[in-house]
Amino acid sequence: MNKVAVIGLGYWGPNLVRNFHQVAGPRLAVICDRDPRRLEAIGRLYPWLERVQNPQEVFQRRDIQAVVLATPVSTHFPLAKAALEHGKCVLVEKPLTASLEQAEHLVDLAQRQGLVLMVDHVYVFHPAVEKIRQLVQGGQLGQVRFIDSVRINLGLVQSDVNVLWDLAPHDLSIVDYVLGRFPISVAAYGKAHVLPEVEDVAYLTLDYGQGLVANFHLNWLSPVKIRYTIFGGTQQSIVYNDLDPVEKVKVYSRGLSVHAQDVEGRRRLLVDYRTGDVWAPHLDKVEPLRRVVEHFLHCIDHQEVPLTDGMAALRVVKILQAAQESLKQDGQRIFLEPVQARCEQLRSPLARKEPVCPNDPKSLSAFRG
Amino acid sequence: MNKVAVIGLGYWGPNLVRNFHQVAGPRLAVICDRDPRRLEAIGRLYPWLERVQNPQEVFQRRDIQAVVLATPVSTHFPLAKAALEHGKCVLVEKPLTASLEQAEHLVDLAQRQGLVLMVDHVYVFHPAVEKIRQLVQGGQLGQVRFIDSVRINLGLVQSDVNVLWDLAPHDLSIVDYVLGRFPISVAAYGKAHVLPEVEDVAYLTLDYGQGLVANFHLNWLSPVKIRYTIFGGTQQSIVYNDLDPVEKVKVYSRGLSVHAQDVEGRRRLLVDYRTGDVWAPHLDKVEPLRRVVEHFLHCIDHQEVPLTDGMAALRVVKILQAAQESLKQDGQRIFLEPVQARCEQLRSPLARKEPVCPNDPKSLSAFRG
Amino acid sequence: MNKVAVIGLGYWGPNLVRNFHQVAGPRLAVICDRDPRRLEAIGRLYPWLERVQNPQEVFQRRDIQAVVLATPVSTHFPLAKAALEHGKCVLVEKPLTASLEQAEHLVDLAQRQGLVLMVDHVYVFHPAVEKIRQLVQGGQLGQVRFIDSVRINLGLVQSDVNVLWDLAPHDLSIVDYVLGRFPISVAAYGKAHVLPEVEDVAYLTLDYGQGLVANFHLNWLSPVKIRYTIFGGTQQSIVYNDLDPVEKVKVYSRGLSVHAQDVEGRRRLLVDYRTGDVWAPHLDKVEPLRRVVEHFLHCIDHQEVPLTDGMAALRVVKILQAAQESLKQDGQRIFLEPVQARCEQLRSPLARKEPVCPNDPKSLSAFRG
Amino acid sequence: MNKVAVIGLGYWGPNLVRNFHQVAGPRLAVICDRDPRRLEAIGRLYPWLERVQNPQEVFQRRDIQAVVLATPVSTHFPLAKAALEHGKCVLVEKPLTASLEQAEHLVDLAQRQGLVLMVDHVYVFHPAVEKIRQLVQGGQLGQVRFIDSVRINLGLVQSDVNVLWDLAPHDLSIVDYVLGRFPISVAAYGKAHVLPEVEDVAYLTLDYGQGLVANFHLNWLSPVKIRYTIFGGTQQSIVYNDLDPVEKVKVYSRGLSVHAQDVEGRRRLLVDYRTGDVWAPHLDKVEPLRRVVEHFLHCIDHQEVPLTDGMAALRVVKILQAAQESLKQDGQRIFLEPVQARCEQLRSPLARKEPVCPNDPKSLSAFRG
Repeated sequence: MNKVAVIGLGYWGPNLVRNFHQVAGPRLAVICDRDPRRLEAIGRLYPWLERVQNPQEVFQRRDIQAVVLATPVSTHFPLAKAALEHGKCVLVEKPLTASLEQAEHLVDLAQRQGLVLMVDHVYVFHPAVEKIRQLVQGGQLGQVRFIDSVRINLGLVQSDVNVLWDLAPHDLSIVDYVLGRFPISVAAYGKAHVLPEVEDVAYLTLDYGQGLVANFHLNWLSPVKIRYTIFGGTQQSIVYNDLDPVEKVKVYSRGLSVHAQDVEGRRRLLVDYRTGDVWAPHLDKVEPLRRVVEHFLHCIDHQEVPLTDGMAALRVVKILQAAQESLKQDGQRIFLEPVQARCEQLRSPLARKEPVCPNDPKSLSAFRG
Repeated sequence: MNKVAVIGLGYWGPNLVRNFHQVAGPRLAVICDRDPRRLEAIGRLYPWLERVQNPQEVFQRRDIQAVVLATPVSTHFPLAKAALEHGKCVLVEKPLTASLEQAEHLVDLAQRQGLVLMVDHVYVFHPAVEKIRQLVQGGQLGQVRFIDSVRINLGLVQSDVNVLWDLAPHDLSIVDYVLGRFPISVAAYGKAHVLPEVEDVAYLTLDYGQGLVANFHLNWLSPVKIRYTIFGGTQQSIVYNDLDPVEKVKVYSRGLSVHAQDVEGRRRLLVDYRTGDVWAPHLDKVEPLRRVVEHFLHCIDHQEVPLTDGMAALRVVKILQAAQESLKQDGQRIFLEPVQARCEQLRSPLARKEPVCPNDPKSLSAFRG
Repeated sequence: MNKVAVIGLGYWGPNLVRNFHQVAGPRLAVICDRDPRRLEAIGRLYPWLERVQNPQEVFQRRDIQAVVLATPVSTHFPLAKAALEHGKCVLVEKPLTASLEQAEHLVDLAQRQGLVLMVDHVYVFHPAVEKIRQLVQGGQLGQVRFIDSVRINLGLVQSDVNVLWDLAPHDLSIVDYVLGRFPISVAAYGKAHVLPEVEDVAYLTLDYGQGLVANFHLNWLSPVKIRYTIFGGTQQSIVYNDLDPVEKVKVYSRGLSVHAQDVEGRRRLLVDYRTGDVWAPHLDKVEPLRRVVEHFLHCIDHQEVPLTDGMAALRVVKILQAAQESLKQDGQRIFLEPVQARCEQLRSPLARKEPVCPNDPKSLSAFRG
Repeated sequence: MNKVAVIGLGYWGPNLVRNFHQVAGPRLAVICDRDPRRLEAIGRLYPWLERVQNPQEVFQRRDIQAVVLATPVSTHFPLAKAALEHGKCVLVEKPLTASLEQAEHLVDLAQRQGLVLMVDHVYVFHPAVEKIRQLVQGGQLGQVRFIDSVRINLGLVQSDVNVLWDLAPHDLSIVDYVLGRFPISVAAYGKAHVLPEVEDVAYLTLDYGQGLVANFHLNWLSPVKIRYTIFGGTQQSIVYNDLDPVEKVKVYSRGLSVHAQDVEGRRRLLVDYRTGDVWAPHLDKVEPLRRVVEHFLHCIDHQEVPLTDGMAALRVVKILQAAQESLKQDGQRIFLEPVQARCEQLRSPLARKEPVCPNDPKSLSAFRG
């Protein structure tokens, strides 16, 4: 009755299988992949799991309560739709869907069915990102002025999504969670070098309003792996270096205050270097994906709304779609309607101004009533 | 007759004074600043130098052959113009001028006068950049696909130029020298947080054609200092980390080749990780500014065209002006006419397709004849 | 008949279980630990494995061909002895035994029985160490002058071995493999802070003769994890930073040549900085423990002598025992008899001057007759 | 009457000249070197300074109040002795002398003459070291258990001192200042590879009593430059990385507490990882040598005892001499009499239990009467 199935055993699926196995034990019952070799390779490590090639078989089983989708992006929508229609709760790899319309459909469907729909925005469950959110929401940065992110690597060039849809969901979901703000505009510029029409280098510029700008370097062709995000604030700033094994988050008291001074006979505005201490808070060593899995099961069992619910996924997809449009128009700036309007249009009782924190999830029961 | 004067003793001027003193000894004769305190502070270290407050005095002296301008950007044009009109060779801090029109005027004036006009694009004289140019021009990278640059710091917020005009000349002159290419379009996005109308955070996106895109992070508000540039090529890639005390330039054989494979029953394009060696070539430990000074004096004494001549400066200013236009239009993409046309318009015998390398400068004598 | 059992499921045992599972599949048949909770915890991940609490049961089973010992050091000798006496091949965690006498006994016993006795000197199977050995044995460093190693961390303070016996086997086995040399003397100094009589900080100084000296920092109390080894040669030098995710091995052409010069009126010997390139060779990404497991099974199946055979283990234990003696005498220098003599004393047909490389193992068959 | 002369214009002398010039202006009056080319090279940068070849001329001038010695170590004693005998205050490069007897002689002489004798232990004036001293003396580390230091580089191989006398004074003076403790024993091991009898690689092991051990890697042949010192405490620990441009001092809350636990059916002592935050305090950006110069002049002008007075220098030389003895005896441990006894032997009113901090210097006037 409460069994879980993982569909898709490519790059990320095995990690999900491993975590569901460790967290839920025998509750994980079925693995599914169209490729019998993948089924064999992963099944050999967990010989007791049922192996299924056709996802439809999974959907029709009555003992399966929840389905996890780690399949190519283009299949997310039909598979998630079918799963929801069969009354299954669903955890989907990022990005939730390949278009906003699909995302809206799934959000609406899950709400009507009263089912948990969750997206694997795995960084939202990273202790580093949680710490950053605490600091930002606690006002310790003052006003955030800029967010610079670099997420580059020799990456897996995929044929059904470009580097934007592959990597930007990480940054967009982090900012969504940390700031609880939605951008007013986006612009993207990129090039496809390896596969035609599939951009492998992209630059994303976002304006979050109130002076906050962001720019992301996204790249599958980089010889070096770099993953950092800087949150520059008026009071303090944070550098989040995901590759530092120990000091991933550093808080800098550094900043500047401006004052006028007469230099060389001219009035000149000089910067005072506020060069204070650097502080690297301790972070728990927990695998974020494990927390994703635990949270998904918890929301199912307690009828709660996941932290990274369909609406969180939709917000990210909405920005991605606009960015994609900008990409095709060579960097044309695209304005984004506030996402709240979209939520109202969906008449969703889930719509909320700010992200729910993991310790305070709202119940699904309200609209199940 | 062959004396040198340095005008402007603010942040950079004293470095120029020190280098001219070390390279040319007594040939450096005059220092000039409107602020008597700066004159006193620097003059105390070089008590034999004449101290002058009014630049006009410098221009009118017959023993002064060359003038070095390290004054605020807005004064570059009037001072350089006056110096050239008085028959002085001129070395100007970057950027050469605050507008393209001014740059064209100076280039034209210097040509008509047969005088050396050089801009202090100091990174062009950096051993790291020279090594990168050798590798790129020697074809060792294959085709360059992207250039990512991050040049951020707690910087001196200035009132007469924004972060774009302050920092981008470094990146633009590096790319100009290394690739010998001029972009076909530019877009810029930024915000002013500290001073009204003076952007302190900016992102620059350039399209150099033939699939080569570039994006620069420029920032005066960053709590950390980062200065790296990645040149991603089809064969090899280079990471230039200017803050690494020893291995500033690293060449990566890493890359990817794509092949189709049947994965999970679907045709999928997979990347082969070409993970080869990393190589950090030895670089001479020479202060780039010293080489600037030596080159300027050499060009004066041998009537040669500097590597970073007026046209090189003009190319950078032209991009800056277009970027500034884009900035004011919230990131609107601005197309750039090829700079060759501009050169012809100036009927300049100096116009050239590719940057001259330091060992092979062309003579000024051709158009002096 | 050819089954494998892993005994000891504490810190390292589960890694051995995982690798034997992945490499040998169903050939791994039994796991053994005195603690039923550990048996349950690990057994849950591999439900098909037989769980045994008493090692004697393992030894008496006829289907078990090989036993892997990941138990506390003090138990290595009795367990390995019993296993060999029951005709099992044995892979033992480092260090092989807690004394030289025990090591000699096991080496002798394995030889007489014609059984494979291998020690898990895991770094010998690390691609970085293999690359370093190639470079050193290929003469690319010239003559090695010094080896500095730092291997410090917040480590697991153990009650039956001190930091010397816990960490030094790594460095000693690396040097043994890379250089194929045995030290002529050893001195050790350390202190016990946490547990009485169990040193948690120790410094080891070794003299390998011909001008080669080495010093190791070994430490369980360090707030930071550092793991590097420098091999300084007359021609080139190597820095092996085990924590660098990409460039673990760097080869420096840097060095110095000395020449006499007259400075300040005095004859002075000046150093020419030979500052050449830095080169980081590509290393395969393979888990060293996987190669240990593959090599152990290969040696069993082909009756070959392992790379890290009993004699390699004995050489390390011999140095450890002398170092321990020095530790108890507050750093007194202890001279070591050449290990060859010891080999002859054992009348071992396995004795050899230099370590066998993995591609050229000698056969056990010679003395099996 | 109050003029200063700098004797020795080799590697370090010019830095002293520059700082005295900047701090004291015209009070620096004379530079002296036996080599006329060095006099010319440095004199050209400061044309108003008098140039003298013979130090005796300096000593005999009545306008010279203080002499700074940056000459080879072997000349420190005769030159400092002559200077003191001529009534000059003296600042000497580290190490003060080449033997303990010489150091005692100078300390005694300076006391009898009532003159300031200071040694340039430049790290004592480094903001990083001052911060570390504050933390250690403030009890924030708890009890210090170990000090690991690595100070290696491609260094200037000198003919009159080995790497021990060249580099260890830095570490020894840092520990002397930070802890205010004197070791009870020292052992040293090293080798001479480049010059006969001049060790270029050395390892130093010190026992400071009460469980505190220290080991230094000293090396002129290293291909990489490493300079760090770890102070491991029971409560917190410090890593001082002198090459980090920003975060030189990091304070780690990490540590371990031990508790017994039953693991695998055995009583086992397990370590709790106390993995807390990391904190990098802000440090002033001041050149330590400038503070040395200011302090020396301050002590002369106010008749105060320098922080790094003759006794501080003597303590370092005493350890060096014992280490040298150990080096010649292949690492034999040498016990050191407490330095207080030595002080009493000298009947010095300057003798003190702990180093004087810069803000609380004791006056020289006491024994001047």
